[in-house]
Amino acid sequence: MADYTIQLEKIEQAIGILNEQNVDCWMTFVRETEHNADPALPLISPSKMTWHTALIITRSGKKVAIAGRYEVVNFERMGGWDEVISYDASIQPALVDALDRLNVRQIALNYSESDSAADGLSHGMYLTLQRYLAGKPYELISAEDILNHLRGRKTPAEVARIRAAVALTDEIIDRITAYLKPGLTELDIANFIHAEYRKEGVVPSWDPHHCPTVTCGPDSPVGHTSPSADYVTKAGELVRVDQGVILNDYISDIQRVWYLQPKGETTIPQPIQHAFDSVRAAIMAAAEVLKPGVQGCIVDDAARNTIVAAGYPEYQHAVGHHIGRTVHDGSTLLGPRWERYGKKPFDLVEAGNCYTLELGVQVPGYGLVSLEEDVLVTESGIEWLGKPQTEIIIVPV
Amino acid sequence: MADYTIQLEKIEQAIGILNEQNVDCWMTFVRETEHNADPALPLISPSKMTWHTALIITRSGKKVAIAGRYEVVNFERMGGWDEVISYDASIQPALVDALDRLNVRQIALNYSESDSAADGLSHGMYLTLQRYLAGKPYELISAEDILNHLRGRKTPAEVARIRAAVALTDEIIDRITAYLKPGLTELDIANFIHAEYRKEGVVPSWDPHHCPTVTCGPDSPVGHTSPSADYVTKAGELVRVDQGVILNDYISDIQRVWYLQPKGETTIPQPIQHAFDSVRAAIMAAAEVLKPGVQGCIVDDAARNTIVAAGYPEYQHAVGHHIGRTVHDGSTLLGPRWERYGKKPFDLVEAGNCYTLELGVQVPGYGLVSLEEDVLVTESGIEWLGKPQTEIIIVPV
Repeated sequence: MADYTIQLEKIEQAIGILNEQNVDCWMTFVRETEHNADPALPLISPSKMTWHTALIITRSGKKVAIAGRYEVVNFERMGGWDEVISYDASIQPALVDALDRLNVRQIALNYSESDSAADGLSHGMYLTLQRYLAGKPYELISAEDILNHLRGRKTPAEVARIRAAVALTDEIIDRITAYLKPGLTELDIANFIHAEYRKEGVVPSWDPHHCPTVTCGPDSPVGHTSPSADYVTKAGELVRVDQGVILNDYISDIQRVWYLQPKGETTIPQPIQHAFDSVRAAIMAAAEVLKPGVQGCIVDDAARNTIVAAGYPEYQHAVGHHIGRTVHDGSTLLGPRWERYGKKPFDLVEAGNCYTLELGVQVPGYGLVSLEEDVLVTESGIEWLGKPQTEIIIVPV
Repeated sequence: MADYTIQLEKIEQAIGILNEQNVDCWMTFVRETEHNADPALPLISPSKMTWHTALIITRSGKKVAIAGRYEVVNFERMGGWDEVISYDASIQPALVDALDRLNVRQIALNYSESDSAADGLSHGMYLTLQRYLAGKPYELISAEDILNHLRGRKTPAEVARIRAAVALTDEIIDRITAYLKPGLTELDIANFIHAEYRKEGVVPSWDPHHCPTVTCGPDSPVGHTSPSADYVTKAGELVRVDQGVILNDYISDIQRVWYLQPKGETTIPQPIQHAFDSVRAAIMAAAEVLKPGVQGCIVDDAARNTIVAAGYPEYQHAVGHHIGRTVHDGSTLLGPRWERYGKKPFDLVEAGNCYTLELGVQVPGYGLVSLEEDVLVTESGIEWLGKPQTEIIIVPV
């Protein structure tokens, strides 16, 4: 049978967070989750849902699941719910009745402008709920602060799963090192990596068209682009791979950089070495300030100031994001104070958070030097979740 | 390189539908689509998106994509877009500027109370858009009617992909027949099927915890439940499997029923045969009335009246749903006039639609007889997309 340890832990964590935040109740309201998969659902639910489903958790510790007749059995098998209520024609009567009985006023819902991981409620479902509750005294509020903490504070079982995904990725990185040689297209390298994933029974952490992202040489475009058949590994150039795997529902997200060293060359060209040292120093600067209580933007500042001081342009993204069930797993971004990021860079880091630390620079004539490490925030600082890259990986050719 | 034939066809189809419906423009507005995957996005986009992305298609045929700096290259590679606009800090200026230049008034957005496949806009993203467009004269309307037709009218390339998924499922059904014997748990059978999927490089059509759904004997609970280790195949009982595969982004969804015939028994027990004949007759009755122009509920009526007239209870779901990129692929449900289904049963069937036809009945003492076929609506009626089940599959034991 399926293992619901994490879901049961997360439900108890949610009750604690409702109490910390003085919010009466949190409701996840979904349907047809193969279309609109509320990212909060897998934290507390045994499965995806087809019919309208309401999962209600109150500050006083009541846990009520209302689901279509054919789906309630999943909640009964999972356990942990005080009431599992079934309906046929419409969820409305059972939902209104349950909310009335629970004696709540505020209902926190999964919507958020700034945090997509807390924004699983569709606009159509919001309209439905407004219609169901018309004339009732409920106050519908955003659950973004609840979800930020609920997603962000990884339980030991969650950290163990992320560690396992990172360890497997580290292994695959070694296999990539053995595979690399001149004359491979970005697509060849991506296909090799996909074959390794299949061999291990895992899937890419994000869109398989972009995971892995492979960058060969100085001309390949930077960013979330598909590996191309136009750019080819060459002696004297760099290869960068950004990748991760989903293992047991939890992910890794790691970047590594290789140098295809031509025969006879005994040192790494100075522009590459300087870029690597600067990127590594920026990551270490971020790691240095990353601890509970610090704002995300302060961590980004540390890396950004370091790379700019080294003479490189600013990276056009955040230095780090949560990882967990997904590759951008919650709010509290280790990012700059840009409008695009909303309030996420201003949130505080907590113990139990798992983040990436990542940035890169272009080295004209050689390619991209870009690193990404996965870390756990402890009470006093960080722990590396895998083996950080401390020097350019040399592939003699 | 990736094949964007379908996306390019769908964009042109969308322009036609905007003209049919006299709507100025349709906008898909997304971010972090690994969290909130708007089901409309893959119809017209080369990939999932991380940053805020707006895809605007106008009645006059203009096609504008606005995406974050690192993601625009995907739209450039795809082609088909008149303008591909990149931004860094915020999408707002580029979005407002583009809408002003396009000279539109109505903007159809992906939200819908009744159709989850047209409800990909999150409530948080709706609030963001309201904020961006405050004081502007735009009228934000639902794109549900646009999306119903866009998803529903499969292009020949789409039908070919569904056919391939159905053909592979038919093959796997034959392998299940060869595998079945007494003493297998539902979980054994599900594991066997998952292994066949892996062998074929495909994944289940829906949540792998419920796809396949396996029902052994008369005591296993009906519905979208996980295969259990508690129910076991037995001589003289039924096995029912509900499953489908995603092949090349398009799915199948098929139910079959097997009878484990004890040694010496030469005919199928009368209650099973009567149930099978009645279910099959109900599916044929639905198939008979399924053609362009008919309301979905009329098709459901035909099946529902047939099964009730045969002395069985009504099934507690719709007799059919769209299939395509997902297993509930759009509006126009072949379903009863229940509140839960909103306006979907009242919509009209169109040529090019692909539907399931499905229902079942419990046979006390034996198990579940339930069938599901996949069909294409043609100009004059239907075509079966696979090999329909015309008799109980007998497994001699």
